[in-house]
Amino acid sequence: MGDTDSNGINKIQTMTHPNPTLCEQATIREVGLRDGLQSISRILPTAQKLQWIQGAYDAGQREIEVGSFVPPRLLPQLADTEELVVFAKTLPGLKASVLVPNLRGAKRAIAAQAYSMLLPLSASHAHSLANMRRPPDEVVDDIQTIVKARDAAGSATRIEIGLSTAFGCTLQGKVEPVEVLRLVKAVIDAGVDCVGLADTVGYADPAMVKRLFELCLPVAGDKLNCGHFHDTRGLGLANVYAAMQVGIRRFDACLAGIGGCPHAPGASGNVSTEDLAHMLLSMGIATGIDFGKLMALRAQVAGWLQGENLYGTLWRAGLPKTLQAA
Amino acid sequence: MGDTDSNGINKIQTMTHPNPTLCEQATIREVGLRDGLQSISRILPTAQKLQWIQGAYDAGQREIEVGSFVPPRLLPQLADTEELVVFAKTLPGLKASVLVPNLRGAKRAIAAQAYSMLLPLSASHAHSLANMRRPPDEVVDDIQTIVKARDAAGSATRIEIGLSTAFGCTLQGKVEPVEVLRLVKAVIDAGVDCVGLADTVGYADPAMVKRLFELCLPVAGDKLNCGHFHDTRGLGLANVYAAMQVGIRRFDACLAGIGGCPHAPGASGNVSTEDLAHMLLSMGIATGIDFGKLMALRAQVAGWLQGENLYGTLWRAGLPKTLQAA
Repeated sequence: MGDTDSNGINKIQTMTHPNPTLCEQATIREVGLRDGLQSISRILPTAQKLQWIQGAYDAGQREIEVGSFVPPRLLPQLADTEELVVFAKTLPGLKASVLVPNLRGAKRAIAAQAYSMLLPLSASHAHSLANMRRPPDEVVDDIQTIVKARDAAGSATRIEIGLSTAFGCTLQGKVEPVEVLRLVKAVIDAGVDCVGLADTVGYADPAMVKRLFELCLPVAGDKLNCGHFHDTRGLGLANVYAAMQVGIRRFDACLAGIGGCPHAPGASGNVSTEDLAHMLLSMGIATGIDFGKLMALRAQVAGWLQGENLYGTLWRAGLPKTLQAA
Repeated sequence: MGDTDSNGINKIQTMTHPNPTLCEQATIREVGLRDGLQSISRILPTAQKLQWIQGAYDAGQREIEVGSFVPPRLLPQLADTEELVVFAKTLPGLKASVLVPNLRGAKRAIAAQAYSMLLPLSASHAHSLANMRRPPDEVVDDIQTIVKARDAAGSATRIEIGLSTAFGCTLQGKVEPVEVLRLVKAVIDAGVDCVGLADTVGYADPAMVKRLFELCLPVAGDKLNCGHFHDTRGLGLANVYAAMQVGIRRFDACLAGIGGCPHAPGASGNVSTEDLAHMLLSMGIATGIDFGKLMALRAQVAGWLQGENLYGTLWRAGLPKTLQAA
């Protein structure tokens, strides 16, 4: 793995995925129910969330982040997460993940037998203090504790790290790639199952995405398996494409692009599921998604969220004539 | 250049730009005054267009498509093109291009001593009949006639082909890459100075862009030097990035993304100049553009175009903190 410097960090080296062509299959994890809904104040009724999960499942989605195990007083929008996990587990093959900020939340995820728990870790020191109330290294310690608790419980719940502000931070500005690399190595060493790099504030560009994934892949290997991109500056899909070119094949997205960046009022949230699904369909990459069903679900969810800012382009432009049979 | 089949077309072969890293410099040609304004019914007063050209020049843009030499009854919005060319020629180093649909328009461009004339050629047979009222091969004949007329006049006006519907067509559907290749070869043989591939209707995806440019580069070499992408399905910037990866470094864009696709009502037009400028700035690629001045111009033009659909994200999100000194 190359030289190691005095801090135990592999010297900067890059690895390009051996196959320069794109993958044949990719996964879109629907995060609208968590990342999307947590950023709007309206509380979607549980019955509608259940319909959303069922609809996404019927449209072929097999990974859904259904909510977050945070105290309901902090995010009342997500207070029904347990119920959603229970329902998601009735749908064969559906991998339901939940966001978990600490050990208490992790215990709830283990008890609920969630497929996966997503633990956030900020690469930005300032963002970590603001969002997690402790520096990144303390969060890494907590992650280690959570891995041990999961293992001690004999739980099958997977532990995934969402490495946020990996491409920059609205509070701190620049985030050094070597710091991202250090944290990726730390959580891999802590025994997590997988890691994703998140452009929480929409600062990433495709060249940056390619470089950062290439930097971290030698340390994380196949465990680095998710890209989470916000479309704040119109680069969400370009960033997905750049990550795919270095072998990443799993991406977070929100139906109708709901959500947003609290630091850029009015700016759009995550890449929209339907626009990403179209890009992958157009490139001949299998996602298992039935585009017509996905668009019908988009229309239904848009109806529930009237008055909120919705994004994406496919709802208006429709599929190209060349893809309409797909 | 490889084998040639019975139709005189080089067998499909691809060439990747020898330097896989991105270029250090790229050019954004402003086409808002032509592609943008022709697609909205409002007629922008000449005085405002002159301010726009001056503002774009002051912001560092050095290529501007100022209008079109078509009969004013067809596009009254662009009836003042001659005057704009005259003004543009007073700005040192500014390359002003005009769109020209036929020999009559070409003669006007030559008389006006435009830096460059852009001749459209549809790769889609159906689009060519609908838009040019003749099949592509007859348009190629006209292009040959125009090249001869230009040369006979001893004119320095460059001739550039905008190969439209190169990635698909709303009328015909699929456009075969070999047909695009054949037409690129035909116009190069006709003696044009350069060629660009245009995704007129927003059907392209980045993998398609990479493949089509790679297919045509061996035939056109450095003469294939422009990408024109519409953002109809949110892929405009991803497509630019894909083209850059195979060595293309010149792109059309419209300030505020004005314009649109007549076949997708409400869908956005070209990639927006400011969003593209941000992507290139973020990737460290020099464009000569002063971002602050560009955004001030964007605000001014948006004021003139109140009530029209405007696009782009940077006007709302602003530059990332990490780029704000730039």
